[in-house]
Amino acid sequence: MKRIAIDMDEVIANFHKKHINLYNVEYNENLTEDDLSGTRLWEIRPNDADDILGYVDDPAFFRDLEVMKGSQEVIRELSKSFEIFITTAAMEHPNSFTAKYEWLKEHFPFLSEMHFVFCGNKSIIHADYLIDDSPRHFKDFKGEGILFSAPHNKYETGYVRVENWEEVREYFLK
Amino acid sequence: MKRIAIDMDEVIANFHKKHINLYNVEYNENLTEDDLSGTRLWEIRPNDADDILGYVDDPAFFRDLEVMKGSQEVIRELSKSFEIFITTAAMEHPNSFTAKYEWLKEHFPFLSEMHFVFCGNKSIIHADYLIDDSPRHFKDFKGEGILFSAPHNKYETGYVRVENWEEVREYFLK
Repeated sequence: MKRIAIDMDEVIANFHKKHINLYNVEYNENLTEDDLSGTRLWEIRPNDADDILGYVDDPAFFRDLEVMKGSQEVIRELSKSFEIFITTAAMEHPNSFTAKYEWLKEHFPFLSEMHFVFCGNKSIIHADYLIDDSPRHFKDFKGEGILFSAPHNKYETGYVRVENWEEVREYFLK
Repeated sequence: MKRIAIDMDEVIANFHKKHINLYNVEYNENLTEDDLSGTRLWEIRPNDADDILGYVDDPAFFRDLEVMKGSQEVIRELSKSFEIFITTAAMEHPNSFTAKYEWLKEHFPFLSEMHFVFCGNKSIIHADYLIDDSPRHFKDFKGEGILFSAPHNKYETGYVRVENWEEVREYFLK
């Protein structure tokens, strides 16, 4: 059985929606997803970068992220034909461990926690495929990297790209 | 550069010393390491298994484990010639995440947290070597498993075995 490793933030958990909302409320702005095309919130608002990066230090930040549309259904389907692991760079936000674990248990109860991986450098991941929004993780990954579209990666090229979970389904189950 | 993945409990952190001490104090016993040869504390005291297994549910349990003799020096030496990752089956004890992270940062400050991996099933680990006290993790591991001696694995055969960190040094740096 082939193995698919799947990232969390921006792939199954809607990170930037909450992040941008927190910023808009605090700074009375109206930034949208489009404003983040090819960039990051802390890059377009460098003066507020400390605040922006600080949002994710709240241990609860990752607990109530929205589930990405279609991810539950498609991963459940894929899990019949593939071995699924969730591989998240949680070491970048050590306060997030418990929230990420509880979020996964709540929204993906059909996956075993023995298939959750909290890591940093994803070259440690042994899988046939890695679905991720951050191309840096593909550099030393030995399998095939599949770029999940997110505002910040809009102009990245050179990877298989999927726009949403429907396209993931098509890619693997076509 | 070849990569060595290294387990925590019973390999760099003295799990069973604290575990058996807690039991001896609570039950007024004098069990020693020798009593655990080829077995586990909860197997020789099945009536107390709930209590024994419960010790590790304390979020602080893993925070003050003793560092295994020689592990710091040898890993520091190995890190000059090998890529080192710490790979622990923390998903078995989700309350342990923070304690394990802080313990690693305290006792192995020369390792990057980007090389810490909290996982369950270790077949996800992509490394050339895995030093571990639990042979079950070698089953689907694609590299070479190196069994680190612990009381419970005394009678396991079929693996390269190291008794202590001096032997790890000899194995890799001979």
